[in-house]
Amino acid sequence: MSSSLDAVLAHADKHIEASIQRLFELIRIPSISTDPAYAGECERAAEWLATELRGLGFDASVRPTGGRPMVVGHDPKEEGPHVLFYGHYDVQPVDPLALWDTPPFEPTLRQAPNGDTHIVARGASDDKGQLMTFVEACRAWKAVTGGLPIRVSMLFEGEEEAGSKSLGPFLDETADELKADIALVCDSDMWDETHPAITTMLRGLVGQEVEITCAKADLHSGMYGNAARNPLQVLGDIIASLRTADGGVAVKGFYDGVTDVPDDVRAQWNRLPFDQEGFLANVGLRLPAGEKGRSIMEQIWARPTCEINGMIGGYAGEGFKTVIPAKASAKISFRLVAGQDPAKIREAFQAHVRARVPEDCSVVFKDHGASPAVVMPFDGAFLQKALKALSEEWETEAAIGATGGSIPVVGDFKKRLGMDALLVGFARFDNRIHSPNEKYDLSSFRHGIRSWIRILAAFAA
Amino acid sequence: MSSSLDAVLAHADKHIEASIQRLFELIRIPSISTDPAYAGECERAAEWLATELRGLGFDASVRPTGGRPMVVGHDPKEEGPHVLFYGHYDVQPVDPLALWDTPPFEPTLRQAPNGDTHIVARGASDDKGQLMTFVEACRAWKAVTGGLPIRVSMLFEGEEEAGSKSLGPFLDETADELKADIALVCDSDMWDETHPAITTMLRGLVGQEVEITCAKADLHSGMYGNAARNPLQVLGDIIASLRTADGGVAVKGFYDGVTDVPDDVRAQWNRLPFDQEGFLANVGLRLPAGEKGRSIMEQIWARPTCEINGMIGGYAGEGFKTVIPAKASAKISFRLVAGQDPAKIREAFQAHVRARVPEDCSVVFKDHGASPAVVMPFDGAFLQKALKALSEEWETEAAIGATGGSIPVVGDFKKRLGMDALLVGFARFDNRIHSPNEKYDLSSFRHGIRSWIRILAAFAA
Repeated sequence: MSSSLDAVLAHADKHIEASIQRLFELIRIPSISTDPAYAGECERAAEWLATELRGLGFDASVRPTGGRPMVVGHDPKEEGPHVLFYGHYDVQPVDPLALWDTPPFEPTLRQAPNGDTHIVARGASDDKGQLMTFVEACRAWKAVTGGLPIRVSMLFEGEEEAGSKSLGPFLDETADELKADIALVCDSDMWDETHPAITTMLRGLVGQEVEITCAKADLHSGMYGNAARNPLQVLGDIIASLRTADGGVAVKGFYDGVTDVPDDVRAQWNRLPFDQEGFLANVGLRLPAGEKGRSIMEQIWARPTCEINGMIGGYAGEGFKTVIPAKASAKISFRLVAGQDPAKIREAFQAHVRARVPEDCSVVFKDHGASPAVVMPFDGAFLQKALKALSEEWETEAAIGATGGSIPVVGDFKKRLGMDALLVGFARFDNRIHSPNEKYDLSSFRHGIRSWIRILAAFAA
Repeated sequence: MSSSLDAVLAHADKHIEASIQRLFELIRIPSISTDPAYAGECERAAEWLATELRGLGFDASVRPTGGRPMVVGHDPKEEGPHVLFYGHYDVQPVDPLALWDTPPFEPTLRQAPNGDTHIVARGASDDKGQLMTFVEACRAWKAVTGGLPIRVSMLFEGEEEAGSKSLGPFLDETADELKADIALVCDSDMWDETHPAITTMLRGLVGQEVEITCAKADLHSGMYGNAARNPLQVLGDIIASLRTADGGVAVKGFYDGVTDVPDDVRAQWNRLPFDQEGFLANVGLRLPAGEKGRSIMEQIWARPTCEINGMIGGYAGEGFKTVIPAKASAKISFRLVAGQDPAKIREAFQAHVRARVPEDCSVVFKDHGASPAVVMPFDGAFLQKALKALSEEWETEAAIGATGGSIPVVGDFKKRLGMDALLVGFARFDNRIHSPNEKYDLSSFRHGIRSWIRILAAFAA
């Protein structure tokens, strides 16, 4: 195996330019899932992936759902351990478009100050660049040895950025087809620029839209100001009420069931290189905003939070308009940790809001995704083999990490298919995912492909 | 005079249809002043008015300014008391457009449940319908008697809804030309459906835009949530901090210099019909929002307030985006009463905000209009004559009222030209000015024209 491994790695390096071009083709499809206007583009991205997999000899198809379609592919090989690779082809919206240096769906290579090259585009990192590392790893194995070292299936979703509404039902329907020995998920970060990581803790998510209505029409603030309730004031009061003076979340019962990180995990985190100051300094900040007395690492990985993701109401155009709007709305989300029940958090938040809406006004809630936090077991052969393969590729010890983001599919794999997942990703913290000028380092892409080549070999051993 | 007065009134009634059609022509010009995209339409509205005045024998011209132009016209008659009539041809933006039942710049006549007819359009009331009552009154006098009973000049502004930036300098430049014995301003409300009113108290206005910047780019709320400062949270905290628990404004020094309404004014208000419950019920509300222990009349006319007029930040489109935005902004205005200095209020507000912006974040202020409150003298021959003329036309006692809105020109007339103003308007409280489906009652228009015909006669006596 070792000689063929070297040959496969060499093949991947030699053909990296073609791999980049294939990634560019996928990026050019603007598969935004939250906006129904892009439904057709999501279909196109799904078809593109199915075609690629068929080109690699997979039995692949696009599977319709109530929302955006799934792509499922199975390699004909039936021997060896069975892995299900997961990625998502949908991307975040691109606004504010004016802040992009280059068109978001025209991938651009840009030299970075550190000598690396950035692939700049929406989805370059999240998740098209990441999922293509695995596809290209399979391509290299097939090109050199005619087949894969183990049994491989793939699942690509198109609603990850839109709450994954169709995923649960789809997994239930296809449980027999998709259940493997382990899932491989490529949607997470490296520890830092040089250390690869396998993520074992993920925060959950509850998304909620809140719309406050006061008067039945917009009012003139001179004629009515003082006497008529202003929904922007009501919303501001609610938002202010969500946080305590010491940076915690003030919703009643929010911390019920939340426990501190075990000492050994905290000790392991403290051994790893993590630049607390640099983490904020990289995005232009200096003072941690969350709970006082907690490290940044704890705040973003092991502590729940409440964030305002959007707010709109009244006149926001050029100039000034002295209006008291009839309505104001906000999009608010909660990141959850182990012990928190998404349904209870949603309920507690709604009660918190209702108690603060004046009797003659009204509130309408719109529910978005809900998923609990997930903690993966630290032991197990797959994890140990993958850690070793990563350490070899990156020539440094791979880390066992956590992520503050939510990857709901991991919870679904566990709950619906009884299957654990290994989260191996090559994104960097500064990739600006969900923001203008999202990028993926070319080194992430190249070493990502090579990492998967090694992991597939390790699992066969 | 009495027989010619009757003939002029009869003429106005007979030709009311032509008056409506001329108003419709003016309304169809979308002269929005806050949005630079409509600058050309403002020019067109100014030209239209100058042409109309010239058709009436006025020496009229469009006068350029640094912003939207002024229209000035003088009737050749030089005998009798001299009045300067003021109105504004610019209108508010129309968003949210989706809430209009008919296109905002296509005036539509609609039967109202009370038997009146509504002219529905942006500017129908504020201020095109109102200013045209005076123009049509002059037309009727000229048609019947060949001239006006007194000396009349007119001034039409095009930036009233955008802070009247050019007005002060223009009045300074043209003081000799425009100074008259009294100004007549038609931009205010009637007391109620049946009682006309002359407004003698006006609140002032300070408009302020606030933009908070935290991180240097939008962030993923999973990756950064808890540790990275969220500008929407900062803005929500600031908005909540602007009000006290008992409904007052919490900015330090805000009430300095503010005095209670004199007892005799309050007694006069209490004699007049004012439906406190109906005032809020008409717009779908029930509970007064402002200072506890103050009547609604006091709250909207004689007490200062702080209102949030607009707020935007983060993702506000379809679906959900788990972003921590880099920036969030709000448009906030203050309504002032006698004793408050706009410059000091602005300064106090900015200090209030600065004290609440974390050290590693920043705030940028953008100043909009600033004008002090104005209180006009209750005595004087013009006021008494106008009250009598109004009482005759509407067959009920005319009220001496106040308005919660700001009409900065009144302060400028006093300060720059040493000229008092009579505020005589025919708008109703439910005209939805600044809102979708703005309307002007046909009875406001018809009796408005007739009221001015009588007032011009009364001033000549």
